[in-house]
Order: sequence, then C-alpha cells, then structure tokens
Amino acid sequence: MSTISLDQARTIIAATLAHGKQLGLKPLGVAVVDGGGHLIAFEREDCTATLRAHIAVGKAAGALGLGVSSRRIGEMAAERPGFIASLGAIAPSGLIPAAGGVIVLDDAGRALGAVGVTGDTSDNDELCALAGIAAANLKAQGA
Amino acid sequence: MSTISLDQARTIIAATLAHGKQLGLKPLGVAVVDGGGHLIAFEREDCTATLRAHIAVGKAAGALGLGVSSRRIGEMAAERPGFIASLGAIAPSGLIPAAGGVIVLDDAGRALGAVGVTGDTSDNDELCALAGIAAANLKAQGA
Amino acid sequence: MSTISLDQARTIIAATLAHGKQLGLKPLGVAVVDGGGHLIAFEREDCTATLRAHIAVGKAAGALGLGVSSRRIGEMAAERPGFIASLGAIAPSGLIPAAGGVIVLDDAGRALGAVGVTGDTSDNDELCALAGIAAANLKAQGA
Amino acid sequence: MSTISLDQARTIIAATLAHGKQLGLKPLGVAVVDGGGHLIAFEREDCTATLRAHIAVGKAAGALGLGVSSRRIGEMAAERPGFIASLGAIAPSGLIPAAGGVIVLDDAGRALGAVGVTGDTSDNDELCALAGIAAANLKAQGA
Repeated sequence: MSTISLDQARTIIAATLAHGKQLGLKPLGVAVVDGGGHLIAFEREDCTATLRAHIAVGKAAGALGLGVSSRRIGEMAAERPGFIASLGAIAPSGLIPAAGGVIVLDDAGRALGAVGVTGDTSDNDELCALAGIAAANLKAQGA
Repeated sequence: MSTISLDQARTIIAATLAHGKQLGLKPLGVAVVDGGGHLIAFEREDCTATLRAHIAVGKAAGALGLGVSSRRIGEMAAERPGFIASLGAIAPSGLIPAAGGVIVLDDAGRALGAVGVTGDTSDNDELCALAGIAAANLKAQGA
Repeated sequence: MSTISLDQARTIIAATLAHGKQLGLKPLGVAVVDGGGHLIAFEREDCTATLRAHIAVGKAAGALGLGVSSRRIGEMAAERPGFIASLGAIAPSGLIPAAGGVIVLDDAGRALGAVGVTGDTSDNDELCALAGIAAANLKAQGA
Repeated sequence: MSTISLDQARTIIAATLAHGKQLGLKPLGVAVVDGGGHLIAFEREDCTATLRAHIAVGKAAGALGLGVSSRRIGEMAAERPGFIASLGAIAPSGLIPAAGGVIVLDDAGRALGAVGVTGDTSDNDELCALAGIAAANLKAQGA
C-alpha cells in the first residue's frame, strides 16, 4: 500500500520537534504511523513521562480509526462521552480524545498515515504536528 | 441454538447498505453476529475508517451482552456512566453505548443474533439496521 | 492507501467458498483485511464454530504482521515454537501459525491486504484462499 | 533514574541501521527503550511488516523484564517453554524469546535501557543492536 516513507517520517519528526522548540514548548513525543495505524517512527525528547509513546500513537492511530483528527474526537467526547470512552476499550492502540493527532493524505485524499504529538497543551501539540507534516510537503486532513 | 443463517446475514447486509445509499448516508460498516455475539458476516464500504469492524461488532455483541439495543445502552450510559464504562472493559467485543446495534428475535422472542451498523449518525445507523432486519423477514427487538 | 475494494473482497469470498464446496470441504470462514490488518469483509458458513472469525482474521492479519504467509509462520513455529508463541501475545489480531492466510500484492509487489480461511485442513484452507484471490484477478504473495 | 538520552538513541538507531545495510540484511525495525521499558525512539525501514514495532519493543522491554538479553530468554524458552510463555501473557510489552534485545548498562553496571532489533535472523538482529550500542559509546550487558 502507499504509505509514509521512513525518510518522510524523519522529516516530520525533526520539523515537529523544531517547531516545539521555536515556540518554547515542553518536551514532546512524536509518532508517525502508516495507514493501518502501525508505527513507522517515534521520538520522545528527554525528560518526558513514560506514557508519551502510548499517547502519541493513540492520537495518531485513533484518528485513523474514526477517519477524523483527534481534535474532532475530543469534541465528540464532549458531546458523547460514553461513546468515545467505549471505543478506547476496543481500539487496538487506544483512542485519545485530544488535539495533536492529524491524518496525512495523499493527492487523491486517501489516508497515507497519521502523526501524533503529545507533551504540551493539545492545541500546541497539534500546531507542531501540522508544522511537521508541512515540512515533509505532505497534506494534513482538514488543513 | 437457533441462529441467523449466512443467507439471512447476506440479505441483512445488502439491505442495510442499500438503505444507507437510498438515504444518502456516509459509507457504512455492517456486522451480523449470532446469539453468542460471534461474527457471521461483515462488510465495510470503501473509504471507511479502520475501526469500523470493531465498532459494528461492539454494537451488536454489546446489545446481546445486556439484552437491550445499543440505543438503550446509550441511555443507560447517560444515567449511569461509570457502570456502562466498567462493562466495556470486561466485554470481549466491547460495549458501544450508541444506537445502531439491534437484537434479532425468533418467533418465540428469543435472541437469534444481532446487527450492528456504524458510519453515519447513530440514529441513521439504526434505521439501516432495522431496514436490513426487515428485508430478511426477521423481527427486531422492540420493533 | 491502496487497498482491496469491497467489490474485490466480495469476489474473493464468493470464489473461496465456491472452491470449498467444489472440493467437498467442511464449512469455512473467510476474512479479507486491508494492508493494516483491518477487516473489510467476512463470511462464515452455517454450522461453523464460534472462533472462526478470530482464526480467519488472525491468519490474514498475522501474515501481514510478519510479511509472510501463515503457512510459513507455521513452519517458523515448528522451528522456533517459543518465538512464534510470544508474538501471539503482542499481535493485536493474533498470529495463527497454520496455512490459510495469504498476502495479496499489487503490481508493484506491495501488500494490498490479505485473505484468511479456516474450517477444513490448513492445506485446503489455503487452496481456497488462493482460488479466491485468483478469481478477483489479484496476485497472491509467493504464487 | 539515569537513562539513554534521545541523542544517544538516535545514534544507536542510525548505527544499527547502517550496520544492517553494510551486512546486506533485510530492512530492520529498531527500538530504544528507557530502563522502565518505555519507548524513547523507534524507526522501521520501508517495506517492513506491520508487527516490527511490537517485536522490537518486545525484545527490548522483555530483556529488561528479566534482566537478561532476549537471546538468553530464547535459551530459557527452550529449557522451560511453559514458564517463558506464561510471562508473555503478563508482560505489558510482551517478552520475545529471540536474540536482538540487548540491555544497555551505565558504568556502575545498572540498566540504562535496552535496544531491540528485528527484521533479519535473530543473530544478525543482535549484531546490529551491538553495533548501535557501541557507536553511542555505551556498554551492552554481557559484551
């Protein structure tokens, strides 16, 4: 299947972390997953807590699970908390209802994979994910 | 036990998807499970997100798990969120508190199985499940 | 990402079950999954046991997990039983070391998805999977 | 606790992959985890199968779980298969009984973290992990 290459994933992660540094954010964790939600690359900056990889993957794979950003999943969780909570129990990599998980599209609008960022506020996490995707000349869903 | 046959399951799925197309809904995923909550047949339309099978089965098997529709489970989740959340952790296929999971009854009122639909709003998902069950000349619980 | 369409999945399942009937096999379960191991379509013939969906998906998704057929995973399990058993615990959909799970390739040799068949002997299960893939004019890995 | 820094993890991964290329191995997945078995960094080369991240982490975190290399866990699995299999069910990241998971020590002999490599034969996977650890001027347990 078409997917994000390791080279592209490295570019996304480097640009995501650089954007966080530029904004003066807390240390981040960044995951890039393929269209099936399987991890391609991950980095966690020094002094980040132990769950960062799980949260980053849960934002990215969860977004692919429902076909929307983890920001939208956060809105759905506010509207229908029980429904979104129930999905966390059946999603193989979890489903995190907070901004920072963004689907990456190919030119035809199909999901190539997703990026998940965690460590600062969710709004800032998402800004960094979008900067990372743009740096790799890829298209973020909804952008 | 008596169950839904594969032929009946195919009729249910074809009619469920046809109803969704007729209503102009988003692409759907449809699961038909036997009385034990075990999958008989499933179809996911093109361009649906990766979690659709889990959600469809979780609606259908979850309904059988409590003996009520997943719509009623959604109401229970609003009344007693902690209780319903706790069941999601122990239900082997999950328990989705949102309409779209409907129990199928035999003439004596015993559960033959269930149908779970996901992809559009839960109300629309349920309409399609009911249309599918009716097309197979089977009886939906509560209908 | 590129994947198997629902129409192709239906063709695969119909031809797989037809081949089983032609050979006089026991009733079968057949799963078609996308490149990430997520279910596209499944059918289980009448009078099959409750685990059939899990086994069919575990053969298909497990094959994608290691990039080889479930027949080869069965050979690996004979050579290194502890290793293959340990993977079953971490593979989200399981990893079944028995023939019947076959990867489907696109023209460039990339995995589009996989087919998993269960119900008769593993050798017969695999024959039916290969017949199903051929009927959809798709290419089986290793064929 | 003392741990492997992200910079060190990047050095380890780059040198591990470079060693694999130099030896002409199949594409690899490489995980670096901290002393608690939590992922610091991961990369999976293009055209690797979907389970590579799970296997790499399972080798590294599993080694820390018993305080020995995953090669030694493989030997233990040959001696006491039921015991090692039982641990796989309770280890949060799995326990992979095959070479390629190596503990990284500080100067006082305490575990700083571990490296897990997967993709070629286990012996080759381990050679690459050792090359990666050496490139970061860190000490591999047992080396």
